[in-house]
Amino acid sequence: MSRFTTFETSDVRFPTSLALDGSDAMNPDPDYSAAYLRLGTDAGDDLLGHGFVFTIGRGNDVQVAAIEVLRDHVVGRDVEATLADLGGFWRELVHDSQLRWLGPEKGVMHMAVGAVVNAVWDLRAKREGKPLWQLLASLTPQELVDLVDFRYLSDALTPDEALEILEKAAPGRAEREIALLANGYPAYTTTPGWLGYDDEKLVRLCKEAVADGFSQIKLKVGADQAEDVRRIALAREAVGPDIAIAVDANQRWDVGDAIEWVAALAPFDIAWIEEPTNPDDILGHAAIARAVAPIPVATGEHAASRVIVKQLLQAEAIQVLQIDATRVAGVNENIANLLLAAKFGVRVCPHAGGVGLCEVVQHLSMFDYVAVSGTTEGRMIEFVDHLHEHFATPAVVTAGRYQTPTTPGAGAEMLAASIEGAHYVRA
Amino acid sequence: MSRFTTFETSDVRFPTSLALDGSDAMNPDPDYSAAYLRLGTDAGDDLLGHGFVFTIGRGNDVQVAAIEVLRDHVVGRDVEATLADLGGFWRELVHDSQLRWLGPEKGVMHMAVGAVVNAVWDLRAKREGKPLWQLLASLTPQELVDLVDFRYLSDALTPDEALEILEKAAPGRAEREIALLANGYPAYTTTPGWLGYDDEKLVRLCKEAVADGFSQIKLKVGADQAEDVRRIALAREAVGPDIAIAVDANQRWDVGDAIEWVAALAPFDIAWIEEPTNPDDILGHAAIARAVAPIPVATGEHAASRVIVKQLLQAEAIQVLQIDATRVAGVNENIANLLLAAKFGVRVCPHAGGVGLCEVVQHLSMFDYVAVSGTTEGRMIEFVDHLHEHFATPAVVTAGRYQTPTTPGAGAEMLAASIEGAHYVRA
Repeated sequence: MSRFTTFETSDVRFPTSLALDGSDAMNPDPDYSAAYLRLGTDAGDDLLGHGFVFTIGRGNDVQVAAIEVLRDHVVGRDVEATLADLGGFWRELVHDSQLRWLGPEKGVMHMAVGAVVNAVWDLRAKREGKPLWQLLASLTPQELVDLVDFRYLSDALTPDEALEILEKAAPGRAEREIALLANGYPAYTTTPGWLGYDDEKLVRLCKEAVADGFSQIKLKVGADQAEDVRRIALAREAVGPDIAIAVDANQRWDVGDAIEWVAALAPFDIAWIEEPTNPDDILGHAAIARAVAPIPVATGEHAASRVIVKQLLQAEAIQVLQIDATRVAGVNENIANLLLAAKFGVRVCPHAGGVGLCEVVQHLSMFDYVAVSGTTEGRMIEFVDHLHEHFATPAVVTAGRYQTPTTPGAGAEMLAASIEGAHYVRA
Repeated sequence: MSRFTTFETSDVRFPTSLALDGSDAMNPDPDYSAAYLRLGTDAGDDLLGHGFVFTIGRGNDVQVAAIEVLRDHVVGRDVEATLADLGGFWRELVHDSQLRWLGPEKGVMHMAVGAVVNAVWDLRAKREGKPLWQLLASLTPQELVDLVDFRYLSDALTPDEALEILEKAAPGRAEREIALLANGYPAYTTTPGWLGYDDEKLVRLCKEAVADGFSQIKLKVGADQAEDVRRIALAREAVGPDIAIAVDANQRWDVGDAIEWVAALAPFDIAWIEEPTNPDDILGHAAIARAVAPIPVATGEHAASRVIVKQLLQAEAIQVLQIDATRVAGVNENIANLLLAAKFGVRVCPHAGGVGLCEVVQHLSMFDYVAVSGTTEGRMIEFVDHLHEHFATPAVVTAGRYQTPTTPGAGAEMLAASIEGAHYVRA
């Protein structure tokens, strides 16, 4: 038996705002950051569990403080018993009644739980010698159901329905795992699309994206409609008619604005409109989706919990669910989100980029393909080519596809030198 | 001209769990706490702006850290210019793009903005020599509209509609202010209803509530249905047929459970069912409201923003809106919530209790009566008789009514000895 003995948090920041990487209509100058956690044990195997919350700069210290307050739930705890009941561990953290008041189940405190949960999953995957996607895809349908807290979900998805979805996918797992290892998983790129880039850089990066084998790119919109039309025309000309172009407003609009603005962009053949308005506005997204159909509405990177995801699906407010590795309370809650999407027949195209989001979220999509939805049709994972060099197992995208990771772990492991070296704080 | 010069935060905790005060189905042992803020200036008038976020114990330090990160938005700032444009100040804090990522507009970071905004309002009210309710009720309709950020609201409430609501109420302000000062504002009490109290204490406190002149009490429910039926029967017998009894499940149920459980309590004449399920579940509340009608559904103390409140009203999911003084981003956002409720014709019965919530939220209901809805019909403010002795101007409830405060300020001022003395942290 071993115990958790160390719980080390770090405030890691990168000065991405200097090059306007990541600039959009709501986030003009992000400094990509991570509130980072490393968990150690006394097992003598040198394995650490790594987890983090992605933030965009100021407030990363608040996020670190929130992770710190979970220390007493972890240090001293029996490692083997914890890894054997990660559903119970999730419930204990999320339903800590005093901490729950700070959300409930949303924002800083909920994301902090996610960092801890993900770090424990990273440790478990390393101990079992498997990449996370493969570990999850090796669990029985009942073991997967036991990882999910169905509280507040039962009007949309019951444990029995979840079991049925997973059992239906079980016979094809082995075949899909082979295909996944051979072919990887589809990606799209946001690298060309940041608002802060000038025309020359936009066009050059669009052409590079096509040359690199991507079949979809994404552009940021929402600051200036005439500029958006001009830029999307440039991009369409650069990529040609056969490459999909999605657009992302990063919550810039009210409902009426969104409907009007999307109509202006529609002639350029829009693959989806992402985050048209406030991420909590279920009814607003539903109204927008009805008005802009058949253009799909996409959101989810700021969906604070499975309760928001449930309603987006119930209300037919989205046609694309964009899960995020560090917005909700970790792997377990994203399994709930994947099951909800499967129940409602909605495709999942994860949010990634930032710091380490590509590295972590790819495991969830790959697990979904092998053991939940059983398909990659219409699905792809966002890719942005930033900051991968800081990770022990950087995401690898070749010919427009994520190459399937085979290294044990959940992908979150940042290099020690990066954790300890990157502490830029913008004046 | 003066500047903000000091920004002092404190982690204030009271050991309320020792007596099971505040115990309910989701919060078995809260330690009522406040992440507290005092703002000072160089004006030489000794006036401080006081604000806080109410929490229930663990994590109060995280909430303090979130308030701290707003320090640079305040210290050094021109006081007079800030007080003259509190709408602009609110927007600057809420839309700080890097900090916004931590919500957006929800949870720890959003509540931190609320503490700062409320502290600045407290200072303004003290400078103008008025209690907050009276200060707000002295502003013109246009000045009030300018305090509200209508972003994400325009599909439900436009600035013009808000102006119309306020202008319609303007002619009756003077008369209602006189009535308010003479008669106070209706209250109800939750003092008898905590789950941790035994039968003898429940019955005794029910009878005391009636003797004290309250016309409504509230009981906590949701842990055990048979126990709830037994306790509500005891309470009904103790208060007689003419006193209203509301029940509060504190988010304990899924949608189906809520509908079934409320049916079991309905024979005891329920005034409302409060927080039946997760506070983000707009569609869930709407389904419950349809099923349990004509019993009203009440929620709002955990409604993270005006966007959630907007949808609860749009979906006809609630018949009672329970605003909270420290859950959203302060006075400005609660003005938006009051205007939304007025637009949709829904009564507002604020959440209070905790630490200082009665002291602060009474100002918002009184302002609503004088200048927004113009009525107290069906409206009342929660009252719980805990911890008032720590405040400079404690809420006073006599004969079932809040006595209208006349001391300048927003009610948030805690005694210095209490701020510095109360730092109990449960082991």
